Amino acid sequence: MSARQLHLNVNILTAGFFNSAWRATTHGAEAFISADHYVRVAQAAERGTLDAIFLADVPAITERPAYRPFYALEPTVILAAVARATSHIGLIATASTSYNEPYNIARRFASLDLVSGGRAGLNVVTTADPRASRNFGFDDVAEHGARYERAAEFTDVVKGLWNSWEDGALVGDQASGVFADESRIHDLNHVGRHYRVQGALNVPRSPQGHPVIVQAGGSDDGRELAARHAEAVFSVANAIPDGKAFADDIRARAARYGRRGDEIVVLPGLATVIGATEEEARRREDWLWSLVPPEFAVQRVAKMLGVEPETLDLDQPLPGSLLGDAKGWQTFSRALVELSVNDGLTVRQLIRRIGGGIGHRLIVGTPEQIADDIAAWFHAGAADGFNLMPDVVPDGLDVFVDEVVPLLRRKGIFREAYAGSTLRAHFGLEKPAGRPRLRRAAG
Amino acid sequence: MSARQLHLNVNILTAGFFNSAWRATTHGAEAFISADHYVRVAQAAERGTLDAIFLADVPAITERPAYRPFYALEPTVILAAVARATSHIGLIATASTSYNEPYNIARRFASLDLVSGGRAGLNVVTTADPRASRNFGFDDVAEHGARYERAAEFTDVVKGLWNSWEDGALVGDQASGVFADESRIHDLNHVGRHYRVQGALNVPRSPQGHPVIVQAGGSDDGRELAARHAEAVFSVANAIPDGKAFADDIRARAARYGRRGDEIVVLPGLATVIGATEEEARRREDWLWSLVPPEFAVQRVAKMLGVEPETLDLDQPLPGSLLGDAKGWQTFSRALVELSVNDGLTVRQLIRRIGGGIGHRLIVGTPEQIADDIAAWFHAGAADGFNLMPDVVPDGLDVFVDEVVPLLRRKGIFREAYAGSTLRAHFGLEKPAGRPRLRRAAG
Repeated sequence: MSARQLHLNVNILTAGFFNSAWRATTHGAEAFISADHYVRVAQAAERGTLDAIFLADVPAITERPAYRPFYALEPTVILAAVARATSHIGLIATASTSYNEPYNIARRFASLDLVSGGRAGLNVVTTADPRASRNFGFDDVAEHGARYERAAEFTDVVKGLWNSWEDGALVGDQASGVFADESRIHDLNHVGRHYRVQGALNVPRSPQGHPVIVQAGGSDDGRELAARHAEAVFSVANAIPDGKAFADDIRARAARYGRRGDEIVVLPGLATVIGATEEEARRREDWLWSLVPPEFAVQRVAKMLGVEPETLDLDQPLPGSLLGDAKGWQTFSRALVELSVNDGLTVRQLIRRIGGGIGHRLIVGTPEQIADDIAAWFHAGAADGFNLMPDVVPDGLDVFVDEVVPLLRRKGIFREAYAGSTLRAHFGLEKPAGRPRLRRAAG
Repeated sequence: MSARQLHLNVNILTAGFFNSAWRATTHGAEAFISADHYVRVAQAAERGTLDAIFLADVPAITERPAYRPFYALEPTVILAAVARATSHIGLIATASTSYNEPYNIARRFASLDLVSGGRAGLNVVTTADPRASRNFGFDDVAEHGARYERAAEFTDVVKGLWNSWEDGALVGDQASGVFADESRIHDLNHVGRHYRVQGALNVPRSPQGHPVIVQAGGSDDGRELAARHAEAVFSVANAIPDGKAFADDIRARAARYGRRGDEIVVLPGLATVIGATEEEARRREDWLWSLVPPEFAVQRVAKMLGVEPETLDLDQPLPGSLLGDAKGWQTFSRALVELSVNDGLTVRQLIRRIGGGIGHRLIVGTPEQIADDIAAWFHAGAADGFNLMPDVVPDGLDVFVDEVVPLLRRKGIFREAYAGSTLRAHFGLEKPAGRPRLRRAAG
């Protein structure tokens, strides 16, 4: 087994990568609002010794509910329930820095971290959807740069609060009556442009110190935030050179913040449709695609590009003029336009290529093809692992765990068993130091 | 068995009613930051067919950590974990209307309600502690009336969001591809003095419709909020006439909002120390009291009254002049002063009477004495049940369940088994109607 090991995270996406996943799951359409669904996914991932499961999130109805599920149950509530039914799998939830207070987020994720024995991760997002802004007193989203400036200070505060307790501050001596050592609990006294937070946090540190910080933005602002704070980065890359360039860029930026390259794991998105033969996999893809109403697929693409659905011709590529507008867009939208313009894909082909949804790379093939692809990216330095998006969950994940994971183990790049019980242990990340004791400086 | 039935809720208070409870528990001092602790309490309560468990909360370190545990893990995170390990017990969590957005609270509690199969309750508080305000960008707490005005609008918005889905709006027909009936999901479009919230909520309704709304303020503002919104009220009452006057007042106020008396259950606080004989119970109380450091007890009383600890004489009653200041205080503080001045209790006796903590009624006695007392209050109309505060949890709760509950059942005032599986079913509350369909008015 080689020293460097692959990391695999499962992005649940309510019912799976395909917009039609809810129609294809064997567990019923209402699964996405049931804790049992997320427990099943987590237990499948844990059976495969995967690193973590991940819940994306937007605090609004962002899909057309007529057609498919949307982000519903609040992610930390789901993962607290999942924590009780699992013992090792990492639990990563998303929270918006635009519509929450940092004290509340620091506390809720520290709580999840303790309840799970040190398995929590916080995916920091700025939330670009205007429907969310209108649930929080705003008419529209703040400008991109302003959102990220706020997110950077927000994350500073959250980390500061997580480190406001030193390890060992909780004494808990029932005989003597000393509950905690107050000299090892520190106020934060943060006064910044957007936040004033006194602290200390009212939650002690967890077995992994504090939750792992995850970030997913591919814009310049997003990369800076990742370089400064993220310990795991979810990226979008459709070819090995893109993946390598992104990973190199993040590590170069991180170095400017005094961070080492191995303090960050970079995980490109990877959607999978698996069959015993390539033909079987293609038939499954056809079937999943046939279950997506075309009018909904066109609406989604139009929405991502900010154009009217009527302006899109199903049998033509996207207009090249859209490329010029791509600068301000989110990563997914840009990838979508590039895919269409560069490869000459018609809107119909494009929709199909992306499963009707988001611009991540999709492999349709056999377990061998998928394992070989993963190994190639891993060895090329284009990925430290993947943010997996099975076509349907848990169904497609079960197949990945049973058919692909054994091949990755045989290649010597993926663990046979968990070596630790925290998310940091799985990701190979160090436990962060709590706030240094002042007396250490003197002694 | 009489038609009217008693309701029993357990207020966990981290480790129990006594400030020394953490030293007395058989489960270790760190239990309060472990999900296992809350699961044990919930399973004990469920074994006794109690209605619910309750978590109070303040988003700050409000105790002196040197001396005792404080509210740490975020309550909905705890209760989501507890939901997985239980099947019937109600799960009531506290959230601050001053330091949260209503969309986030509506969503998180609706999520807990679905994850638990319809067992959630939301205790609405305005949070009076200045340490909390300083974790959210403020120098001090807002004035009492302003806090309650905001809380009333906050609760309006939360209820509106909970009712933005009609029952049955989630269709989930995998064969036809109809996921939801969008005509039965309604934006809220709330525009008020403090909040603008478009909606709809991104969580469908639960088996009980939406979480039960709980309120605990005894001030005039608090009673109005309870009368308008609360379905369960936690109160402070030290004698049957007080309890009856409070319950009558709440119901009279509720009638002015067009609500029926049976739409609200009134649950005074009741702390218990139980022994096989009264002498044994007194010895247990002495022991628990001996474990509270006196300097900490004095600090707590002084803090509740807003005076310096040095101004309190351990062997004198509180100065009668404090009674004049009582108007703006919280319920607990007022009860404390009245208890001392009216009964001539010295500060030392007062501290002992209240277990070093909060102004709720404490009974120290045998299971028979406690069951008789409960029945007397219940039959006098001074209580629909009690917000129980066992001396130590789960230890003191186990004894209550094993020794007191059978006596209450024998008296015919407490259930032998759960008749339903939702918190509303336990409390005898109706399922609230979702937003009425417009077409109903026409048809």
